[in-house]
Amino acid sequence: MSDTPPAPQPARRFSPQERQALYDVIAARRDVRNEFEPTPIDPKALRRVLAAAHAAPSVGFMQPWNFILVRDEGVRRSVHAAFEAANEEARAMFSDDKQADYAALKLEGILRAPLNIAVTCDRTRGGRVVLGRTHNRDMDLYSTVCAVQNLWLAARAEGIGVGWVSIFRPDDLARILKVPDHVEIVAYLCVGHVSELFKKPELAARGWRDRIDLDSLIMEDGWTGPAAAPEEDG
Amino acid sequence: MSDTPPAPQPARRFSPQERQALYDVIAARRDVRNEFEPTPIDPKALRRVLAAAHAAPSVGFMQPWNFILVRDEGVRRSVHAAFEAANEEARAMFSDDKQADYAALKLEGILRAPLNIAVTCDRTRGGRVVLGRTHNRDMDLYSTVCAVQNLWLAARAEGIGVGWVSIFRPDDLARILKVPDHVEIVAYLCVGHVSELFKKPELAARGWRDRIDLDSLIMEDGWTGPAAAPEEDG
Repeated sequence: MSDTPPAPQPARRFSPQERQALYDVIAARRDVRNEFEPTPIDPKALRRVLAAAHAAPSVGFMQPWNFILVRDEGVRRSVHAAFEAANEEARAMFSDDKQADYAALKLEGILRAPLNIAVTCDRTRGGRVVLGRTHNRDMDLYSTVCAVQNLWLAARAEGIGVGWVSIFRPDDLARILKVPDHVEIVAYLCVGHVSELFKKPELAARGWRDRIDLDSLIMEDGWTGPAAAPEEDG
Repeated sequence: MSDTPPAPQPARRFSPQERQALYDVIAARRDVRNEFEPTPIDPKALRRVLAAAHAAPSVGFMQPWNFILVRDEGVRRSVHAAFEAANEEARAMFSDDKQADYAALKLEGILRAPLNIAVTCDRTRGGRVVLGRTHNRDMDLYSTVCAVQNLWLAARAEGIGVGWVSIFRPDDLARILKVPDHVEIVAYLCVGHVSELFKKPELAARGWRDRIDLDSLIMEDGWTGPAAAPEEDG
């Protein structure tokens, strides 16, 4: 460690306009499936987006992430086939009355988006013991998710849409992308320019599920919600 | 589901200044431990920050999060004691030559910050089957982390620092905050106004670990890094 202790500096202050810009990006972000345009992504914009991801917090400053940029058509076709297989399994898990609704939803843009990005977490990057990860081994996965969210917001500000596809059997994706055992694929993202988006989350717009009232989610000094899981209805 | 299919709308475009505001917030965000000021947080700013968290993406629009605002001194003292117990265990896991460095790091601001926020994930919120979560049960935890990252950035833009404390035995925190079994505490955050911050991540400023070069983290069409975990050195 350094001999002269470093010291904090006066913190940057943000103007109301800057603050509002952040809030507007957060509010305008969408999980994109169908609105991707085929235009290749400007390399400079992509670099800024990846740099934003790399500026995410990480446990013990572990920075466990990698970004696999998938443009190859053959690789994307294999990924799409893996999605289709898993999605058939997923559809069958819904109750009969929801299966038709489910089947009508488009849930990925793997081939439509000009770029896919697999964001991975190298579970071994920090060495044997990582500061802050001693009591929760999954903190490195959470750090990687923080990087995904930074990437998502930065992309939105650049006019680039992102859709997170989670319907895969994990082993399929690892095999296709040649990802070894000590690395976990945390997110598979479809990425492309967008000029149209849904005004609210697509699943809300389509009546699948509503936004929860924020007040009902805030508690004081301890859990005050249901003490047990609700009974299952089917 | 609704009968008239909804349609996407022209997407909001962000100016270069708005984009830069986002990038500046992302770059200026820090994991704060020691710079919290005692001033209570303005309720309107806190509300904006929580609304930003609630605008995070969630698998199947599950919105599995709750926000437990912890201000009570007695509760915070119990949480602090739980941290101290876990941190003693954590310190002992480092090699002898790193233990003194580790012990010199301040790793939490539980009592110093005027507000703590536990961000939880209700694993049952979406019912028996959640869209997008059929093949990865942990997608709800990842959604909750996205909410944490939104909260963190919004707070920074408001002049509010956030520090994520991960050194707890999970059962201790659940007991103190009375969180039931079907709910997981994903993040325990210390929150307070800040006027000074480190220019770079504190663990980098203090020489604990360096920033990795972004270029070395980007791959094309498949994993091209080490095929196996590195040998352990002790």
